[in-house]
Parts: sequence; C-alpha cells; structure tokens
Amino acid sequence: MVTIKERHQVLDWLVNNLMSPEALAHPLATRDFSADDWAYVVEGVPHEYRPLLWRSLLPASQPAILCAMRDDARKHLLAELASDEVNELLALSSADQLLVLYEQLPSKLARQVISELPKQARSSVKDALSYHEDQLGRYVNHDVVTVLPQTLVADVLLDLKQRQLPPYTDVLVVMDEQERYLGLASLDALFSASRKVAVSEVMMSEVGILPNVSLLDASNRVKASGLSMLPVVDEQGILLGRFSLRDSLDVMQEHYEEQLSHMGNVSDEDLFAPVAISARRRAVWLGINLATAFLASAVIGLFEAVLVQVVALAVLMPIVASMGGITGSQTLTLTIRGLATGQLSAANLTPLANKELRVAAINAVLWAAVVGVVAAWWFGNGWLAFIIILALVVNMLVAVVSGIVIPVILNRVGIDPALAGSVILTTVTDVVGFFVFLGSATLLFL
Amino acid sequence: MVTIKERHQVLDWLVNNLMSPEALAHPLATRDFSADDWAYVVEGVPHEYRPLLWRSLLPASQPAILCAMRDDARKHLLAELASDEVNELLALSSADQLLVLYEQLPSKLARQVISELPKQARSSVKDALSYHEDQLGRYVNHDVVTVLPQTLVADVLLDLKQRQLPPYTDVLVVMDEQERYLGLASLDALFSASRKVAVSEVMMSEVGILPNVSLLDASNRVKASGLSMLPVVDEQGILLGRFSLRDSLDVMQEHYEEQLSHMGNVSDEDLFAPVAISARRRAVWLGINLATAFLASAVIGLFEAVLVQVVALAVLMPIVASMGGITGSQTLTLTIRGLATGQLSAANLTPLANKELRVAAINAVLWAAVVGVVAAWWFGNGWLAFIIILALVVNMLVAVVSGIVIPVILNRVGIDPALAGSVILTTVTDVVGFFVFLGSATLLFL
Repeated sequence: MVTIKERHQVLDWLVNNLMSPEALAHPLATRDFSADDWAYVVEGVPHEYRPLLWRSLLPASQPAILCAMRDDARKHLLAELASDEVNELLALSSADQLLVLYEQLPSKLARQVISELPKQARSSVKDALSYHEDQLGRYVNHDVVTVLPQTLVADVLLDLKQRQLPPYTDVLVVMDEQERYLGLASLDALFSASRKVAVSEVMMSEVGILPNVSLLDASNRVKASGLSMLPVVDEQGILLGRFSLRDSLDVMQEHYEEQLSHMGNVSDEDLFAPVAISARRRAVWLGINLATAFLASAVIGLFEAVLVQVVALAVLMPIVASMGGITGSQTLTLTIRGLATGQLSAANLTPLANKELRVAAINAVLWAAVVGVVAAWWFGNGWLAFIIILALVVNMLVAVVSGIVIPVILNRVGIDPALAGSVILTTVTDVVGFFVFLGSATLLFL
Repeated sequence: MVTIKERHQVLDWLVNNLMSPEALAHPLATRDFSADDWAYVVEGVPHEYRPLLWRSLLPASQPAILCAMRDDARKHLLAELASDEVNELLALSSADQLLVLYEQLPSKLARQVISELPKQARSSVKDALSYHEDQLGRYVNHDVVTVLPQTLVADVLLDLKQRQLPPYTDVLVVMDEQERYLGLASLDALFSASRKVAVSEVMMSEVGILPNVSLLDASNRVKASGLSMLPVVDEQGILLGRFSLRDSLDVMQEHYEEQLSHMGNVSDEDLFAPVAISARRRAVWLGINLATAFLASAVIGLFEAVLVQVVALAVLMPIVASMGGITGSQTLTLTIRGLATGQLSAANLTPLANKELRVAAINAVLWAAVVGVVAAWWFGNGWLAFIIILALVVNMLVAVVSGIVIPVILNRVGIDPALAGSVILTTVTDVVGFFVFLGSATLLFL
C-alpha cells in the first residue's frame, strides 16, 4: 500500500511535469497504486491535462479508478474523452461499476450499454436503477457469501477453504433455498462452534436493511451494528446483497463534503472543473445572492431621507447586519446538525429555542452595549447609541428564531437546510436589521 | 439492534415525559439499546434533565455510554454529576475508557484515577497520554489478536476455536517474541492455507501506522488498506495495538462535524450546552466579528462627505460587500477541501488560482453589468453605475485571491482554515469593497 505522503509526492511530480514538455516519462504505472490512489491523483491534476494522464493508465484499471473519483470530476473527465475511449472503458466495466458511472453518462449511451449486458447482469442493473441515486437499492453489493441453514459447520469451513472471501466479510449470510434471508453467521462463531452442528445453531438474528432506505440511514445502521457489513433484504424478505462499513464510510464522507460545499455556496464541485461549467454553476448562487442583496438595498432605499440627515447611520449599518448574521448562523448550524443526526425533532425544538434565545439575549445585551458606547463616543450622539442598541437586540433575537425555523421548514419540504438555509437567514437578518435601525432613526430624527 | 427510527421514538417519548411529572416510568432500561443508542438519546435531552435520565441508566453501562457521547456533551454531563457519582463511574471504567474521558475530567481527579490503576494498565495509559489528543498514539486499541510467525496454521485455527475475536478483526497480527511487528495474516488466508505450514508462509506485509500520525491520517490509511483494521507500530517496530475501520469512521465524522461547526461560527457544541457556557463561547466569535465589522465601519467613515452628497451609495453598499463575500467563500470552500484532502499543494496552487480567477472574472463582468444597469435605472445616474461596476469587479477578483491565499497561509501556520478563514475573508472583501466603491465615488463626485 502507498502512504498518503507518497500519493502527495506523485501528484506534485505529475503536476510539475505535466506543465513542462517532459510529459509522462515517469515509471509511475509500475507503482503499487490502488484505484483510490489514482483517483486522488487524477482529481488533483488540472482539467486540461487529465486526458493526457488518463491515457497513460492501464485500460483494465480505468473503470475502477473512474468509480473511485468524485461524481463531478468523473463527469468532466468523461466529457473530455473521445466516444471510442468511453465505449472501450464501458466494455471493460462490471455491472456494479456501470451503476456507479450511470448518472454521469449521456443517457442514450447508458441505456445502450446496459441493453448489451448479459441477461442476468442486465436484470440486476435494471432493478438497481429502479431506486433513486440516494437510496441503498442503487448500490447494493452482490459480492456476498451465503450459506444454507441446514449446512453443517464442518462443510461451511471446508467451503471457505476453497474460496476467497470478499473484503469486509466478518459474517456469512444465511438464506434458504428460496433466497429468503434468515440471519447471520459470524466467522468467529463458525470457528468456535462444534463442526457437527448446523449453521442455524450458530446463526444470530439481525434485521436486514431495506433497499428503499437512504444511503445515509443505511450507513448509520451498519455503523451501529458492530459488524463490517449488513445484508440488504427487500420487503418480501429476499436477500439482495450487502452493504459494508467501507461503503458507509464513503457515503458519510460524500455527505459531509456536500454539506461543507453547500455552506460555502458552491455545489460539490470538482477542484479543477472546466471554467465554463464552474462559472455557470456559481452564477446561480451569485444571482440568488444578488436578488437578496437588492432586497436589502430596497429596504435601505426606503430610508434615504434619514440617511441624508444622519450619515452616521450609513457608517454603522454593516454592524447591525453582520452581528445578526453571525448570531443566526450559530443557531442555524446547531439546528442543521441536530436535524441531520435526528436528535432534533418536534419534542425538543421548544427547549432548544428556549436555550438559544437565552444565549442570544445575553450576547445581544453585552455587544449592543459595547456598540452603543462606541457609537455614542464616535458620533457624540446618545440617540444614535440608543437606536443601534435597539436594532442589534431585536435583530439578534430574530436571527435566533430564524436560525431554528428556517432549517426546520426547509427540512420538512425536503430541501437540504445546508443548501439554502444561510442565504435565507442572511436575507432575514439584513432586512430586519436595516428596517429596525433605519426605521427607528426615521421616527427619532425626522 | 435498534433501528434509527426506534431511537428517535425513544428520544421523543423521553423528552415529552421529562417535561411532565411522569418522569421516567418507562421500561426503557430493559430495551436492547447499545451504548451508541443511549449516547444519542442523552445528547438529545435538554441539559437540565440529563442527570435525571443518567441516574436511571445501569451503572455498569455508563462508562461506555459516556465514551460514545460527543466531547462537549460529556463534559457538561460530568460537571452536573456529584463527585461520588463521578468516582463510581471512573472506578467502573476500563483503562481505554479512561483515556477517552481524560480530557473532560478535572485534571487532579484524572491524575488520581490513573495512579490507582493496576501497574500494567497505568503504564499503558501513561504511554498513551504522552501523545497529543489528535494523535493516533492516544487511542490505540489494545484488543488485538497476535500470532507468532513459526506457529502452524493448524494451531492458530485451534486457538481461534477457543477465543472470541474482537469486532472488526479480519486479520491476525504476526509478531515475534520481542513483540516486533512482522506482518498480517488474514483469516481468509489462514482458512485457505494448508494446516501444516507456518503462519509466516501466509503472512502478507503491510506497513504499520506510526503512533505519532494524526488520527485523520491514520483513518485515511485504514480506509485505503481494504482491511477492517491496521496495526499500530512504533519507530522501533514494536507492536502497540490496532486501529479499526470503525475507529476511522468515528474520526472522520468528528472531523467533518468540527469543520461544519467552524464554518457556522460555533465551536463543536453540545446541542443542549448550558446557557452560560454556550453564551461565553459564542461571545468570542461575536466579539471577533464585531471587531471586523468596526473595521468596515471605519472605512465607510472615511467617506462620510461623499455619502452625504450621494445617498444612493449607502443604498448600494451592501451589494458590493455581499457579492465579494460570496465569491470569496466559493473559492475558500474549494481551497479548504483541497488542503484537507491533500490534493492541493505548492504544485497546483497556480493552476487553481488561474482557473478561479477566470471563473470569477466571467461572473464579475456578468453580475456587475446587471447591477450597473439596475443602478443606472434606479438612480438615473450613469456615473454611479460605472463606479459600482468597477467596485464589484475589483472586489470579486480580490475575493478569489483572498479565498486561496488566506487558507493556505492559515494552514501553513497551523490554524484550521475552516475556523478563521471566512471571518478574515469577509473582512477583506468588506474593506476592499467599501474602499473601492466609496473611494472612486469621492474622486468622481466631490
């Protein structure tokens, strides 16, 4: 296995040399790189050099590498390859690999490739495609070792002697002749048992995971089970395959990276996405943000008269907006995490709001007082200090309520709160902050 | 095992009933809840009710539950318990559990408990404590099955028949009489091998993980290995223990949750932290933010003269700041992820900056034009349109450069870029945006 430092060195070497005319004269292909290692390196190479690097990789290893890449980077690479190359690649891919690549293939091509699969693989791929991208049924692993309940432990052990176990196999799956799932027999239990008993004697019961649960729920189930894998079993009790702890880890990483991207106002983007694609995607976020910024401007526009009279208001405006925004984002972040883990539900929403309001009230009073003193000293105007204190306290309390209500509503209507939460929240705190601040100034000063 | 939905139901029931006088008359303790399930429920219960719930749990199960909780929630719970209760809990804890609890215990108590351990446990705990909280050496699992290289496969299998394997064991660790690590023997290989050969014949070589690597690096290593565990081996080649894929998953989840919290301007906080503690922590973030907001106000203050003349400037200011902020956060997010995965290094920083600048330039021109047209129409002033276009383009390009340079510098000096990156970035985009916008207005209009 390659260490992470070695990965890094290879990537650095490649990037430096792809930039120079020496190109790919490195004995890299002979290195003991896994598909994961290669995926890491390919993603770290600027877009325009990826096809060059890609063509130097062994064709037989390409499907696994492509599957190990991020969705977005995979899509961009596929778009760069000639259709011959893509066809060759797909011909070398297994049915499970085709399922991973499916969403990033042109739909016509994807359908064609699947229609050319052998009958059994085709039907299992079609079953998988009947599930959504986010559902477990889409990515069930069929590489599972099964045993019949009446088989003797001695015979199971004899059989294990002949075959190679797939990775992350610490249990065998017990099913009957009708492929109905019955339970699990751990390798440990099989070892320790008398050779003369039947598998059913050492079997433990463990609920299988339904194929229609989300990948994230399935991952949590595997994590909680204490096993390296769990069986996937349909509503009729038929064994479909398995889902491993390693799969869970991949799902969780992808989930968290998506959340982080969303909080940073990007889609889960390839580091070296093509400029045109990247520009188009980000334009969407910037456009939404601009619309909300115009809303804030419109609110300020309502109070032009007082701004002309008291220019200090314009100077202090960013403080009202920014303190409201930060307070709201703190509560929003906790609420989003609570909703994601499931620890937040109807029952403890009120206690949470209660606690958050008290926390915000303490900070609102504290920081509003600081700002008030500074404003009074800076502009020598006690009334100005009074209205900024008022605006800060109101805005920070509204921010807390928004930080809970917005993600809960988004969650209920099926929108990822990490995606839209902070844009909506900032709009609320900007509008409320400016309105209270400039509105009370209008009442006082005009 | 309990499903996630059942967890949820229990939590809801508990929260609803803790609020009413019925209290804890539920036959919950008899349920098949694991330590993880209980940790989940305890964290979801408001702070003030946790001790009540805690005291209803079986004392023998408490150490495992406490270890399964988030650091922060654990700390708050420990602070709520009487010192007798804490002592009892610690007396029931294993050496490995004490290591997990260590950082959240009062330091005097922690030292005392460790000094009372049996000699061997005490020395292993002291070894572990010589490593930092973020280093693998702190959390090495000692529950590892070892074999000598000269042992016959038949004898290993006989031995396995007698003992129970720890979870996530797919390999046995081969070491010599001096406890020097030699390699791994997979259960699969042991099965398939002839019973008459020595373990050394079926052993595969695999580099052990050094105890001084970070937990995150160790997790990546285990993930990449294709195995459920890897051995931890010191510089002298002595076997210290193991690190499992399940440990990796926990480390990754904790890492990502911390990043998400930091991006939302909170510490990695307990959902129901005590109000006083929570208020104090968030005050720090709000204070830092206020300082940067004052900086932005000071910049605006420099241009009071032009704001009095052209009040439209005050109306449009938030647009300049906000578009710069979003553009910067998009680049910042990609850079932070690239630095975290290690895919971004000296070699590909320039190509990334290149690409990001081109993406931002396209969007800057596009959206600046839109804002310019709206501004010209709204205020009927072509010069105003000109200066807001100028300010937006300059600010969005500065934002991109900041979005790369700030996290790279923070990373180099050892500060988590997710923690401080966005505060510094927003300060830069606010200051630059206001300065260019109001500065050019001063030149033009005064």
